[in-house]
Amino acid sequence: CDYDGPAMKTQVPGPRSQELTKQLGEIQNVGAVNFFCNYNESRGNYLVDVDGNRMLDLYTQISSIPLGYNHPALIKLMAHPDNLSTIVNRPALGILPPGNFPEKLMESLLSVAPSGMTRVQTMACGSCSNENAYKAMFIWYRNKERGHNTPSAEDLSSCMVNQGPGCPDLSILSFMGGFHGRTLGCLATTHSKAIHKVDVPSLDWPIAPFPKLKYPLEEFARENAQEEARCLEEAEDQIVKWRHKGKPVAGIVIEPIQAEGGDNHASPEFFKSLRNIARKHGCAFHVDEVQTGGGCTGKFWAHEHWGMDDPGDIVSFSKKLLTGGFYHKNELQPYRIFNTWMGDPSKNLFLTEVLNVIRTENLLEEVTRSGKALLNGLYELQTQYPGILSRARGQGTFCAIDVCDDATRTSIILKARNKGTCTRRHSLRKCFYSMCPPSFSITAFTRFLKLVQVFLKY
Amino acid sequence: CDYDGPAMKTQVPGPRSQELTKQLGEIQNVGAVNFFCNYNESRGNYLVDVDGNRMLDLYTQISSIPLGYNHPALIKLMAHPDNLSTIVNRPALGILPPGNFPEKLMESLLSVAPSGMTRVQTMACGSCSNENAYKAMFIWYRNKERGHNTPSAEDLSSCMVNQGPGCPDLSILSFMGGFHGRTLGCLATTHSKAIHKVDVPSLDWPIAPFPKLKYPLEEFARENAQEEARCLEEAEDQIVKWRHKGKPVAGIVIEPIQAEGGDNHASPEFFKSLRNIARKHGCAFHVDEVQTGGGCTGKFWAHEHWGMDDPGDIVSFSKKLLTGGFYHKNELQPYRIFNTWMGDPSKNLFLTEVLNVIRTENLLEEVTRSGKALLNGLYELQTQYPGILSRARGQGTFCAIDVCDDATRTSIILKARNKGTCTRRHSLRKCFYSMCPPSFSITAFTRFLKLVQVFLKY
Ligand code: FES
Repeated sequence: CDYDGPAMKTQVPGPRSQELTKQLGEIQNVGAVNFFCNYNESRGNYLVDVDGNRMLDLYTQISSIPLGYNHPALIKLMAHPDNLSTIVNRPALGILPPGNFPEKLMESLLSVAPSGMTRVQTMACGSCSNENAYKAMFIWYRNKERGHNTPSAEDLSSCMVNQGPGCPDLSILSFMGGFHGRTLGCLATTHSKAIHKVDVPSLDWPIAPFPKLKYPLEEFARENAQEEARCLEEAEDQIVKWRHKGKPVAGIVIEPIQAEGGDNHASPEFFKSLRNIARKHGCAFHVDEVQTGGGCTGKFWAHEHWGMDDPGDIVSFSKKLLTGGFYHKNELQPYRIFNTWMGDPSKNLFLTEVLNVIRTENLLEEVTRSGKALLNGLYELQTQYPGILSRARGQGTFCAIDVCDDATRTSIILKARNKGTCTRRHSLRKCFYSMCPPSFSITAFTRFLKLVQVFLKY
Repeated sequence: CDYDGPAMKTQVPGPRSQELTKQLGEIQNVGAVNFFCNYNESRGNYLVDVDGNRMLDLYTQISSIPLGYNHPALIKLMAHPDNLSTIVNRPALGILPPGNFPEKLMESLLSVAPSGMTRVQTMACGSCSNENAYKAMFIWYRNKERGHNTPSAEDLSSCMVNQGPGCPDLSILSFMGGFHGRTLGCLATTHSKAIHKVDVPSLDWPIAPFPKLKYPLEEFARENAQEEARCLEEAEDQIVKWRHKGKPVAGIVIEPIQAEGGDNHASPEFFKSLRNIARKHGCAFHVDEVQTGGGCTGKFWAHEHWGMDDPGDIVSFSKKLLTGGFYHKNELQPYRIFNTWMGDPSKNLFLTEVLNVIRTENLLEEVTRSGKALLNGLYELQTQYPGILSRARGQGTFCAIDVCDDATRTSIILKARNKGTCTRRHSLRKCFYSMCPPSFSITAFTRFLKLVQVFLKY
């Protein structure tokens, strides 16, 4: 039932989208709206808009659609009455879980648990996943400092008025270019774009540089190793400096690939050394896989590419996993982590089925295969247009290429959209990139690459 | 299809719940789990657990079930194929909304917009609703300070490293006993229980006392007026003090009834005066209706009881509204408020139907009627047991009574549960309270009251 290609009727946004944007503008801010969609008519890799345009979708709702649109396996789930009741009655999971909750967790999240992690806490989005992961690290760190898990009377009274020692001066080390969400705690560790942060109060927490690798990697091996060593040294310096400042680093948070920050990669050795620095200084190590998790790198978790038995203390997720949450090691028990919903079992239901499809259809292999075709295509393009394109890079279908300037990039992306291919405008690194669901096929990429090639030619 | 009363087979938690708690304990922290539920078998006001116990539910998933379990109107929604696609394809609402989004917003959230508010931003839970409402107030305040909406180059560069002027030293004034969520920004305004806050870094923001009223109100009119005047004075003092500290108050956040803090009420005059103080000092006024919104006070919004045309600048909601979000006045445009999902249209779908049912079945009148029966019953009980019960209070079905000590309260609640009535243990004010969906009937309350009476007798 998949469509066999794009089919365009109007420019995008078309007249109907423009009309609806005006209507919605009466109710809320529409500054970020691209166009309006007909999700009922969308299928697989093809997104249909309200003007009847059918576009190849390399954007996938900010990387949050795991199997394309209206996957029959997911639609089928709703034929079962038990599942209807799961969708209609959202419980307070932390106090009154449904009877099948342990079993569903085993079938879904636990079946893809990162190495060394046997415990998982569901949440509802990437931000609450990270916020609560930070809280778990703070509580763990304070318990370690105290030598036991019981806050003192002074802790309990001072925290009520936001003061120490109950509200301790602890910090999280994050990286320049990182993105971990937009609620106040997460935002203090987000450093991708000023526009996310400006005018919002923050916390004085340390920030280390993230490596800026030169491409092709083979050619710049020595320079890149030096760059990574510099960043590691700086990270360690910050940990020491903030300890002396009286704001010890309780945890380090990092993405395996900086996504929102412009698709920045680092070597497995970089992450291994950083993990060791965390261990050495007694900081928890939090791998944020909100954007990278779910298979788009060719492994279920991007950190699997590091080849470590003990990749971290906490791994957070959301987006393509449909439910948010975080895995954690036994030592980091998230005591006192609680909210009303603690996730949503209806999302867990769909996740179970998504994982089944990924397994039975060998989609991770498919991602590796089609990701290679995409990356090779990008290599070819940059050889053909060296003045325009550079730094082609990627893992699985999580690929990117830099365009010489904003205007050229925007023009390529808008032209591609009008020809039926949605991809992502990225203002920071002037790159366009794809974050495709595991079901994405080589045919789709070939089509995309051909389009780009045509635009560059004329 | 509603059940006609509780039916108990075992003590609660029963053997099956205990077994499942052990299983879930292998995967996650189960410290807060009460028992496991069979949501498929639950109906209306009756919650069925995995041991086959059927209990009258006065707790309603921490006040987040608007119409009881498995309401036929909600189940019916899933028979329509368009709705299946809404549930299966969660979009990035801020950039690619579905074609029916403006219309669905008009039918649902806009149809119950608070006085003076024509704009609404959906979010996914109470915490992100409040976090983003705070951000909207900060941005509004900075724009006001600057005299225009464009951050300076220095704002943009300093905010990237969490420093001023880009990350300004602004604050939110909150109230002792208030609860606004548990992510870091919200948590800085939450002051209900130490256990929510301890070990988590916070922000140095001002906190004012919330009135502690004496009951019965008729008897303590003068004392209560004095108490409210004292709290208002203190709030104004804090605003002035924090301005001098260099951390001006951008907004005031308050619940119309402090819920998690122990069902604390204040008079309409108190809220009116506070609103004026906000105006006088140029602070935005944020009414947090996450727990009170949705009809349980007998009006759709609790602030309607204040009888004001201009109750606030922002009203946030979640729980019984199924989707989170906030309404705001035109002046408080939430520029730069964005995240991946921006809510969930599938929740909006159910909300539309919930509002239809509330209207067609006149449920707000029903709440007023049955709330009166409940409150009168509580008055009678406290007259009969003056040494044990006191301060019966409430609005609609949002009722509470204080119990003399923790042990007695816990014993009443556990006994009631074993007889088939779930209510809420509240550790702070030693009260038990009910937060019932608008469909709650007088029969249900009578049954509850009779049970409590029997326990107190023996
Ligand atoms: S903060 Fe995650 S859903 Fe609200």
